[in-house]
Amino acid sequence: MSNKLNTPKGTRDHLPVDVRKREYIFKAIAKAFQSYGYQPIETPSFELSSTLMGKYGDEGDRLIFRILNSGEKVKKADVQALQNDELAKFANSISEKALRYDLTVPFARFVVQHQNDLCFPFKRYQIQPVWRADRPQHGRYQEFYQCDGDVVGSDSLRNEVELIRIIKQVLSGLNLPGFTIKLNNRKVLSGIAEVCGVEQELIALTVALDKLDKIGKEGVVDELVSKGFSQEVLDKIDPLFGLEGSFETRLEKLKVFLRGSEIGLKGLEELSFVHSKLQDFDANHELLELDVTLARGLNYYTGIIIEVKAHEVEMGSICGGGRYDDLTGLFGLKGLSGVGISFGADRIYDVLNSLNLFPASLSEGPEVLFLNFSESTADQCDVWANVLRSRDHIVEVYPSASKLQKQMKYANDRGAKWVVFYGDEEAAKQQVVLKNMSDGTQTSYSAGSWINEWLG
Amino acid sequence: MSNKLNTPKGTRDHLPVDVRKREYIFKAIAKAFQSYGYQPIETPSFELSSTLMGKYGDEGDRLIFRILNSGEKVKKADVQALQNDELAKFANSISEKALRYDLTVPFARFVVQHQNDLCFPFKRYQIQPVWRADRPQHGRYQEFYQCDGDVVGSDSLRNEVELIRIIKQVLSGLNLPGFTIKLNNRKVLSGIAEVCGVEQELIALTVALDKLDKIGKEGVVDELVSKGFSQEVLDKIDPLFGLEGSFETRLEKLKVFLRGSEIGLKGLEELSFVHSKLQDFDANHELLELDVTLARGLNYYTGIIIEVKAHEVEMGSICGGGRYDDLTGLFGLKGLSGVGISFGADRIYDVLNSLNLFPASLSEGPEVLFLNFSESTADQCDVWANVLRSRDHIVEVYPSASKLQKQMKYANDRGAKWVVFYGDEEAAKQQVVLKNMSDGTQTSYSAGSWINEWLG
Repeated sequence: MSNKLNTPKGTRDHLPVDVRKREYIFKAIAKAFQSYGYQPIETPSFELSSTLMGKYGDEGDRLIFRILNSGEKVKKADVQALQNDELAKFANSISEKALRYDLTVPFARFVVQHQNDLCFPFKRYQIQPVWRADRPQHGRYQEFYQCDGDVVGSDSLRNEVELIRIIKQVLSGLNLPGFTIKLNNRKVLSGIAEVCGVEQELIALTVALDKLDKIGKEGVVDELVSKGFSQEVLDKIDPLFGLEGSFETRLEKLKVFLRGSEIGLKGLEELSFVHSKLQDFDANHELLELDVTLARGLNYYTGIIIEVKAHEVEMGSICGGGRYDDLTGLFGLKGLSGVGISFGADRIYDVLNSLNLFPASLSEGPEVLFLNFSESTADQCDVWANVLRSRDHIVEVYPSASKLQKQMKYANDRGAKWVVFYGDEEAAKQQVVLKNMSDGTQTSYSAGSWINEWLG
Repeated sequence: MSNKLNTPKGTRDHLPVDVRKREYIFKAIAKAFQSYGYQPIETPSFELSSTLMGKYGDEGDRLIFRILNSGEKVKKADVQALQNDELAKFANSISEKALRYDLTVPFARFVVQHQNDLCFPFKRYQIQPVWRADRPQHGRYQEFYQCDGDVVGSDSLRNEVELIRIIKQVLSGLNLPGFTIKLNNRKVLSGIAEVCGVEQELIALTVALDKLDKIGKEGVVDELVSKGFSQEVLDKIDPLFGLEGSFETRLEKLKVFLRGSEIGLKGLEELSFVHSKLQDFDANHELLELDVTLARGLNYYTGIIIEVKAHEVEMGSICGGGRYDDLTGLFGLKGLSGVGISFGADRIYDVLNSLNLFPASLSEGPEVLFLNFSESTADQCDVWANVLRSRDHIVEVYPSASKLQKQMKYANDRGAKWVVFYGDEEAAKQQVVLKNMSDGTQTSYSAGSWINEWLG
């Protein structure tokens, strides 16, 4: 039976070293947000279905995990709907709640619900799992953590600047050798569509442009042709594919390109403002790049768009975000502008793992392991262990007087740094023997004073 | 619309101060477990239904939240079962996964599944939410955290001693003025049943005894009579209701009571061993009490049973646990003894709140808030803010040059400790003014050197 045991597909257990590595990332993110005055909030794992459904598009709705109503309530199952193949209607008849799909919609609900208890501009961070009924595949899970930070109630671009500084603080703090923070602006995308005379096809245009990274210029052109874009439009946008040079150079080229679009120029102005505040960034380590093909969740971003990639490792974006002008409008509170970022903890984990950047200490076992030779000597070891623990050391006393070989195997497997021998023989000599497990050396101390001597 | 917004009943949002208070508790628990070499693990929020169902009794099964199968899979709904009122069968036809109900069963699954990767005795702690479809009522939620620590693979009673020390370390560390750790042993309960000649009615007997706290002696006797226990049995157990005195005194009295029961005397021996190792406990602060009526989840405990209550506040148990000899047997791995405890973080939260024991710092706002008077002075404030952040201070710069009144209201609402004035006027004088928000005093510093002067 045991060999069939498993977690549901798309989910996984986290063993101790794994938990510590993940906490190391969460702590770095939380600490950076905290230092800028962002405050932690938490929302329930499930929301009323009405809060979530319809917020993520049809595809999103399909990926939301629904919770079956309890007890007698399932009797209300709409069997007719099931027989008519109206599966969503059937699901609605037996489910009122759903696991959250992201942290953004619950946050919008939170802000509207608690608006009278919050102090605006409200800066919050939130580190919690989300669930998606995605087809499980390598590196994509049905349960994963999001680490979001948002400011709502301020339209100042200084918030964008602050969030980009937080990204830098987190990734530099995790010792990433380098990363590129790509910036764009929804207004620039609108300007491009305007200049090309395809305002109505904005989404089709930007969805295609957004794939430049993956499918190259030819792929994008093919997609645009297949979507019915004219040769005239293709000729017009051609210069955008070749945009090179520094942030300033690209800004200047785009100013020419967008000279006929008020909204486009406004977008450039915002990008220029943000860039001007980040002059201390080191282009070798944290590169700021203007990327007009960047679109991301275009449906709700209205201003600056942010995406971050790590250098020296092939990986999707490890952080992304942007400004949205009307997120809480979904829940009836209009006119509250917001901007936020979301760290992908799982991808950051993979980057740190593949570049071997996790501190070795996360994989270490107890500092001191007392072997157990008899009840009376173990009692004395317990006393010492408690002294060490009160001084913030991690200490174990082997729970029973098992064979020495078994206890030493445990010490090795656990990765103990020091093993203490204090059996009847040592007790008779009023002696304690410490073994350094990394080099195998042994040192004797006087039992009465060894802790202070050993700690120095 | 906004006034109808809410979380599902039985769930709640956590606002910032609330999150910090909860983290304060989780950290105290994690730190205590860590210092004894316990390692963190995490399991997925949902498990295969087959892992959970049937492990908690019929009532438990009904309280498990099931997750609806996604997409086309709901077409397999067993409509016949629904029409026959076989609701569990119907639920099984459209649901393969369920939210975890506690951390114990997932842990047993984890140990069996990963047995070849673990090092035994395996000591783990786990702090994660669980979900129960309980009728929501005051202080009882459908989503709440459990904080468990267990040792599996060792039958040494030193583990029990260690867990009781961990309870003391956590609760003393949280500055609880006092608490009682009640101990019993399943073997003592078996012994009582044996002495009374009602081994077959062990559960009915102990379920009744367990209510002594709530319904008093009369209530217990009434219940036993209604369950058909004879007057002879009632006379026999009568001395148990009046058990008074120290731990040792009660042990002595019980030795007489249980002299005819081998298993009962074995239970007393175990209790005596554990008690003897905890002689340094201070009876005024952390009281150890032998309570023969304590039963808890009798169905899986096989040895020592532990329950903790806080002094000076009316509240159910804030921690509980015990030894179970065959938990992993559920999943096919026999003969692995375990012992564990579980802290009720929500109740500990309520105790600390009602005794006003949370550190005031958890409710504080940013240390320093820079007001924003203009782009150029705010740029300079940003530079200073980053210097302070690099020295571990929590600092905000107001994001826009709003009216002073609005910014000061924000400073007050956020609970900022210090507010920095640096506008065009101060810039012209090369001066920075700091306002102490608790006493209203203001101090001027030279702009070139104020940070070092102010920090001293």
